[in-house]
Amino acid sequence: SNTIKVAVVGGEGIGPEVTDQSHRILKWFSDRRGAPVALREAQYGLIPYLATGKVLPDDTVEAMEEADAILWGATGGPETTEVPPAARKAGSLLSLRSKYDLYANLRPIVANPALADSAPLKASVLKDVDFIIIRELTSGIYFGEPRGIETLPDGQRRGFNTQQYTTSQIRRVARTAFELARTRKGRVCSVDKANVLETSVLWREEVIALHQAEFSDIELSHLYVDNAAMQIVRAPSQFDVMVTCNIFGDILSDCAAMASGSLGMLPSVSLGPPDRLGRRKALYEPVHGSAPDIAGKGIANPLGSILSVAMMLRITLNRPDDATLLEKAVDTALAAGARTADIAEPGARKISTQEMGDAVLNAL
Amino acid sequence: SNTIKVAVVGGEGIGPEVTDQSHRILKWFSDRRGAPVALREAQYGLIPYLATGKVLPDDTVEAMEEADAILWGATGGPETTEVPPAARKAGSLLSLRSKYDLYANLRPIVANPALADSAPLKASVLKDVDFIIIRELTSGIYFGEPRGIETLPDGQRRGFNTQQYTTSQIRRVARTAFELARTRKGRVCSVDKANVLETSVLWREEVIALHQAEFSDIELSHLYVDNAAMQIVRAPSQFDVMVTCNIFGDILSDCAAMASGSLGMLPSVSLGPPDRLGRRKALYEPVHGSAPDIAGKGIANPLGSILSVAMMLRITLNRPDDATLLEKAVDTALAAGARTADIAEPGARKISTQEMGDAVLNAL
Ligand SMILES: CC(C)[C@H](C(=O)O)[C@@H](O)C(=O)O
Ligand SMILES: CC(C)[C@H](C(=O)O)[C@@H](O)C(=O)O
Repeated sequence: SNTIKVAVVGGEGIGPEVTDQSHRILKWFSDRRGAPVALREAQYGLIPYLATGKVLPDDTVEAMEEADAILWGATGGPETTEVPPAARKAGSLLSLRSKYDLYANLRPIVANPALADSAPLKASVLKDVDFIIIRELTSGIYFGEPRGIETLPDGQRRGFNTQQYTTSQIRRVARTAFELARTRKGRVCSVDKANVLETSVLWREEVIALHQAEFSDIELSHLYVDNAAMQIVRAPSQFDVMVTCNIFGDILSDCAAMASGSLGMLPSVSLGPPDRLGRRKALYEPVHGSAPDIAGKGIANPLGSILSVAMMLRITLNRPDDATLLEKAVDTALAAGARTADIAEPGARKISTQEMGDAVLNAL
Repeated sequence: SNTIKVAVVGGEGIGPEVTDQSHRILKWFSDRRGAPVALREAQYGLIPYLATGKVLPDDTVEAMEEADAILWGATGGPETTEVPPAARKAGSLLSLRSKYDLYANLRPIVANPALADSAPLKASVLKDVDFIIIRELTSGIYFGEPRGIETLPDGQRRGFNTQQYTTSQIRRVARTAFELARTRKGRVCSVDKANVLETSVLWREEVIALHQAEFSDIELSHLYVDNAAMQIVRAPSQFDVMVTCNIFGDILSDCAAMASGSLGMLPSVSLGPPDRLGRRKALYEPVHGSAPDIAGKGIANPLGSILSVAMMLRITLNRPDDATLLEKAVDTALAAGARTADIAEPGARKISTQEMGDAVLNAL
């Protein structure tokens, strides 16, 4: 059948609160617009750990295994200390990214004019900001071996990690970037540190080779990562698709977060390799973390998770009209003044996580 | 004698132009205020390469060797292609940092209210921004071995680099940070990625150990690098002294550049280990590079280099009053409307590199 299987895993911290709202909205698209999804909720974190000894219990593994798309909340928080590191690691987000080979992490940065007042950047700088950072997610220094901490003969300690990339690891994520650029403004900016790192020299050579072989219709440019960080603050509207390695993408996407008003606004998807039909396993999640300081208070911004559902509608469900409908509903809610604490001007009325979900549903 | 030996090396691209202005100003402090400096000019780059086969000729090596402080311009540019990579590498900035063990790179970020109009950040965000990033400069992924590009049995290539830190490498740069914080607001923020990298786990443990042993009067906090990049854009006034590894410092300081209005405004110094008298070899340079696109036009902003001279007056010459005098003269020139192209509002009058030097001298 054409039914898309979706595992809904709220996780820890503010994860369950925000996912409740995006889950409601996904149901709305299923009920009212006939989006063909089968939703299966599953647990992650301290609660299943206490019951089963695993942060990622068998039922959740099964739900994620069979899923075409995973709607993920957040992991970690103060409760982390109650779970021993080994149990934590066995079910970590990094291990999931690796297990499902989710190598292409897409993080759209879109400035919303309604939020210009609470953003640190000037409205003139935010004008026309609409780009996507594609971060390589399953290699680089996050996963490279050897790694560790050793004691040297003189008693000192030495920590070491390995940054590494192969031809195919670079080319497949660059391919995702070039293909995405074809559906957008046709521009890719590849970010590296080729003036210092051999991994970056190889990165740049392979990106150029793929571009020449298959994507010469796309405009390709290159920036050093330090310059890219500055340009993202100075003039973020210059970018369309940016592609970079794991650690640079981690830093640059947070650096860019402020161009969208708040980290709480940012959606993402992590895509695996295409199967014969071009379908890719996908994990949708807000860019923000578990935010333990506000967890359980019902004040977190659910828009990062809700906009991740819009990405799911566009990418996994191939329903661009529904995606746009949802994005417009978010715009409408914001334009009408709906503000969670993170995006509210000092003194302005703040609404709850649930009320923001209501505001978006009402605008649909 | 107490005379401080200074090697003045303009280098390539806009390096010579901006260094001409900071050199004039350093001479002014020598002539008019009795700053005890002996200045020795030396060449670097394509010109000496064509004459001697070395970008860093023997005379320049000698000048730098005997110097207490080096006033450095910039390296690189289009002319780079005329110098073979091996000759380039033998005299590169990275090799100099390593040769003189200049492990502590200080990059102050100070927002100037006069530049608020041309900055991308809002004036409210720029208010009270005054912090220093201390970047470890002679280890980490820049220098770690093994490194290279290899061909795998299946014909693919693999690039690899090693991020590495030892106990003493971490502690000595953290010490610089804690000592500097004692002369400032007493706060150090250490930036790492300890949730992913073993090098960062060790970094954090060693910073904490040194803090407990010798600097418990200082307020110490820790941020993950992705969060730090966001906080630098969101609320840069929260920081006093930030300390981090080589690659994170490279990225974060450019990310922070916009909080000071323009990359052209940023000074820096790279310090070696203290000798028995506490004196440290020091290389002063603007954070910007050789900017080949505007080289030779006489329009570059010399304030990064001029403010590096203020740092030299404060640190190597131990003349804090002279340092403040020069910083105030820069403020006066800016407040009076002196603007090179990089910091001018659209349509405003732009002055040349030389005229900016004049404006600062007149304000002294
Ligand atoms: C929590 C952490 C391991 C993670 C990362 O660094 O990838 C997070 O910062 C992210 O960006 O998803
Ligand atoms: C030119 C380059 C090698 C250098 C660096 O990465 O250190 C520069 O970006 C800097 O920040 O001084």
